[in-house]
Amino acid sequence: MAPVTNARVLFGSVPKDFPIPGETTIYDASQTIDLDNAPLNGGFLVKTLVLSLDPYMRGKMRSPEKKSYTPPFFPGEPLYGYGVGVVLRSENPVVPVGKYVYGQFSNHQQYSIVEAKGEFEFLDKHPKLPWTVFVGAAGMPGKTAFHGWKEFSKAKKGEVAFITTGAGPVGSLVIQLAKRDGLKVIASAGSDDKVKFMKDIGADVAFNYKTTDTREVLEREGPIDVYWDNVGGEILEAALDNANINARFIECGMISGYNTGQQDIKNLFQLIAKSITLHGLLVFRLHHKYDEEFYRTIPAALASGEIKYTEEVHHGLDKIGDAILRIQKGENTAKVVVVVAEE
Amino acid sequence: MAPVTNARVLFGSVPKDFPIPGETTIYDASQTIDLDNAPLNGGFLVKTLVLSLDPYMRGKMRSPEKKSYTPPFFPGEPLYGYGVGVVLRSENPVVPVGKYVYGQFSNHQQYSIVEAKGEFEFLDKHPKLPWTVFVGAAGMPGKTAFHGWKEFSKAKKGEVAFITTGAGPVGSLVIQLAKRDGLKVIASAGSDDKVKFMKDIGADVAFNYKTTDTREVLEREGPIDVYWDNVGGEILEAALDNANINARFIECGMISGYNTGQQDIKNLFQLIAKSITLHGLLVFRLHHKYDEEFYRTIPAALASGEIKYTEEVHHGLDKIGDAILRIQKGENTAKVVVVVAEE
Repeated sequence: MAPVTNARVLFGSVPKDFPIPGETTIYDASQTIDLDNAPLNGGFLVKTLVLSLDPYMRGKMRSPEKKSYTPPFFPGEPLYGYGVGVVLRSENPVVPVGKYVYGQFSNHQQYSIVEAKGEFEFLDKHPKLPWTVFVGAAGMPGKTAFHGWKEFSKAKKGEVAFITTGAGPVGSLVIQLAKRDGLKVIASAGSDDKVKFMKDIGADVAFNYKTTDTREVLEREGPIDVYWDNVGGEILEAALDNANINARFIECGMISGYNTGQQDIKNLFQLIAKSITLHGLLVFRLHHKYDEEFYRTIPAALASGEIKYTEEVHHGLDKIGDAILRIQKGENTAKVVVVVAEE
Repeated sequence: MAPVTNARVLFGSVPKDFPIPGETTIYDASQTIDLDNAPLNGGFLVKTLVLSLDPYMRGKMRSPEKKSYTPPFFPGEPLYGYGVGVVLRSENPVVPVGKYVYGQFSNHQQYSIVEAKGEFEFLDKHPKLPWTVFVGAAGMPGKTAFHGWKEFSKAKKGEVAFITTGAGPVGSLVIQLAKRDGLKVIASAGSDDKVKFMKDIGADVAFNYKTTDTREVLEREGPIDVYWDNVGGEILEAALDNANINARFIECGMISGYNTGQQDIKNLFQLIAKSITLHGLLVFRLHHKYDEEFYRTIPAALASGEIKYTEEVHHGLDKIGDAILRIQKGENTAKVVVVVAEE
């Protein structure tokens, strides 16, 4: 077969604040690949089916000398992240042709050659769920919600939970897990459509933080026993001031500071005054404890409709730059996924 | 018997920053009490033997409308805090004459009439330990160290602990508990004498934070798995930057901000990057879990010399104003206690 186009998305340059499509990220369709003959060097060739775009990716768009828990993107090289692909050719005996693989191995390109040591897991095709779900509610964001809630919430029936970015893929699952555990749920997001969605999935109190004062809501509906923090900054301060004695804070993200700089936290003494515990959550450090239970229960609950999810689906690698910006600005309506190819 | 002087220490006015002896606190010897006939109203009359002075008292020197976990002192009324006294007269059948009582009931005065509902516990006189120890290493500060370490440290042999104010009554016990659990201990305090004491009780690395850069020490000797925080502010930021994955921070105090205002914390995102847990500690919320074990083991270990302690003993209520200031400035050499009367 003749070489085919292997389009990709490159990291261009470090953004000053919000990423700029075309500068920070560059769509490039100049390369080709010979699918039959490209050397595999002991690895395998994957055709990318879907890619996940997530808030944490902003942390990789930094100058390489800045240390972080996650390696940086390098200018001129493709972005990468979680994705699902199908194996077209393989020199790795444990990765047969036709298998579906999931993991953070995926370059943002149509076809990738993955080294033998790449980190990935195999997925079975689900009769009722599209692949996009396996990078969202049944993928890393779903695991973040599930593993973090299991490990840290110590939820008791009748307690009050406050969940930020409650219409996103993490927050929306947390809302439903909290309701299943019998908690009163306060949830916030940045648009009236998202507020409606949060109510639909069970939030007792849902509000638009752009038009409603978070402190007022928490003073009226709190104090809160569990806080799921995806935003940091002023909202974290409001939660500290409105926490109950022995509250658990699950620190999952601080997106309010990813683009314009983290805001300093003024009232951390509340930790002591109220015997609050703050847990920093990175999901990959909990995979070994909860992955088995997650895959045994969550995809089935998503397929049956017992747990609800939404997606914002984009088609084509050329949409990635804009979609990343939508996430950082909070303009996405739901979990953002990119369909790169049908099977 | 004729009425006798009942000297006391009053709260004068809210300090702007550091307390001012004679203004913030006022020694007053103008009152008398008739020990035989003063009405008890169902309570009991206590002769104060020793009083404890502690960092947290600064938090009570505030305007009453400011909310906090601890009630404020009221201008014109006596200070109060932890102390040990002996019962001289009683109308409370569960508090017989001659019993020794311990608790936060104690007004800073020679004699107090305690209401029946006051919170206190009984102590047995120890053959080898003076009463001062029972407001220090065998009292609230000792419990703070013991209960907090038991509840939150999850210490494992070979890990690294960093302990601030390591020569104080809390920190010095934490150092010894950490060594007993097989950890490498880094400890800081504010004078060379304190550094020597910390080495004497087992700290592997002890330094004077006023003359040695904390960040340099932690970069060289860390990363740290357990951080015992008594200071907050910049040192907390340094600890966050030098924490190991899955580190536990025990937030016991933030004295760096008690007098001049809490410093904002800039790098809280490290919580997420390193899966750190911050535990706010208030000892009275853990009494029910660990008091029994504490009294069964710690006084005996102090008496035998297995666990070491030091005290800075002042004599007389008139020394309280200066002693409180010494604590807030970090000038005290050890746990500060005031002997008010011999038995």
